[in-house]
Amino acid sequence: MKNKRNILITNDDGIFAKGIRSLIEVAKEFGNVCVVAPDKPQSGMGHAITINNLLRLSTSDLFDKIPAYTCSGTPVDCIKIGIYEVLKNKPDLILSGINHGANTSTNVLYSGTMSAAVEGAMEKIPSVGFSLCSFDSNADFTLSKHVVWQVLEKILQNQFPNDICLNVNIPSSTLDNYKGIKICRAANALWEDRFDKRIDQHGNPYYWLTGDFSHDDDGEDTDLFAIKNDFASIVPIQYDMTAYHSIAKLHSIF
Amino acid sequence: MKNKRNILITNDDGIFAKGIRSLIEVAKEFGNVCVVAPDKPQSGMGHAITINNLLRLSTSDLFDKIPAYTCSGTPVDCIKIGIYEVLKNKPDLILSGINHGANTSTNVLYSGTMSAAVEGAMEKIPSVGFSLCSFDSNADFTLSKHVVWQVLEKILQNQFPNDICLNVNIPSSTLDNYKGIKICRAANALWEDRFDKRIDQHGNPYYWLTGDFSHDDDGEDTDLFAIKNDFASIVPIQYDMTAYHSIAKLHSIF
Repeated sequence: MKNKRNILITNDDGIFAKGIRSLIEVAKEFGNVCVVAPDKPQSGMGHAITINNLLRLSTSDLFDKIPAYTCSGTPVDCIKIGIYEVLKNKPDLILSGINHGANTSTNVLYSGTMSAAVEGAMEKIPSVGFSLCSFDSNADFTLSKHVVWQVLEKILQNQFPNDICLNVNIPSSTLDNYKGIKICRAANALWEDRFDKRIDQHGNPYYWLTGDFSHDDDGEDTDLFAIKNDFASIVPIQYDMTAYHSIAKLHSIF
Repeated sequence: MKNKRNILITNDDGIFAKGIRSLIEVAKEFGNVCVVAPDKPQSGMGHAITINNLLRLSTSDLFDKIPAYTCSGTPVDCIKIGIYEVLKNKPDLILSGINHGANTSTNVLYSGTMSAAVEGAMEKIPSVGFSLCSFDSNADFTLSKHVVWQVLEKILQNQFPNDICLNVNIPSSTLDNYKGIKICRAANALWEDRFDKRIDQHGNPYYWLTGDFSHDDDGEDTDLFAIKNDFASIVPIQYDMTAYHSIAKLHSIF
């Protein structure tokens, strides 16, 4: 039974990242894995899709006994071409990550990792994005692999909620210090942007986007609180962005 | 009073599109307009930001008496660099569009036009994205300009709801046939993707993303219903993607 489940895996750090290899190592114990991942880093690509350019798709022998493909597009492109061109069928499960870096709070919007999972939810496929709260490209994924195992066991034993995906963030911590899983809401936070202005060799200016992640949301039910306290956070994410609570107010204005 | 309001304008079709010029023509009657728009088409870029590459920012004299800049990045980059580098202050209003093509339903997720407005909402700035339901680059924006005028009058006379932006879609219709504004929810719909496989001059395959927009959501409170019946639709959009209704269910699983 276990081995017949079809699992599509992608990420946004690209197929050569340590995070996706760690995810595959756990996921292959739960079903038939197929990898369709970006051929280069695609961090910060959000829900971008390639509509004004072509896509390339190539086979990869990077993972032993695991069918794998690189795609020239974004993480969401990888899900679309993975379902409709590679598998030619909807998989039973979509996993994205493990991202090198946190995707807590409003970072879901910018995250290619999470947008791939959101695309899976739109297709009504159980989908989970995993992120380790460390940007180190050689980070230790021991705890992350333990959390992936915990999450997959739970969701495969239960009915996956319809119309959502899961945003799992894992603290940059150790198995010893890990406190378990916490179901959370996304903290209300945002980037306070700055632009670092530099001058190129021709005397022309260019800019780097930088900034600090800032929040004044001290709720103990948030993902930021969970991560700070050595829990893994799970936030259910919906793709319907309608602000239903504002509809009555708008009726009064228009 | 009117003339002191600062309005930041962007789009995703690029600074040369007819839609942004139409938006500027109306907006300049309501305040001081500053344009920061992509230097090339950025359709389908969703909430992508440029974090692994530099950004260029150049002045443009494309619009008479209107300060304007082109940015090498995405629509969300334009909002960020517009606020933090060009204006050095938060504007009173952010307008995005007028997009050439519908951004109804789940297209909000893929839309650079709407993601720019969502970024504005995250900054707690009243923000509106406008889209004309016609992909014609030379479309008639007469009705669109009328709708922009209607929307700006209403929102500037009232307190703008906090934490949301507005997604305004305008039917490809005439002033005579136009029925007015309808407050809506986003229809539950998605793209049924297909990939058109072609062969390049070297014999290698490449793919174009294509497909049909499909929905079985017949609700008369949806944006798709409004547009079909010659109304302009307004959907309030929130940036918090937490699926609060699923939290209890997840507590029972984990």
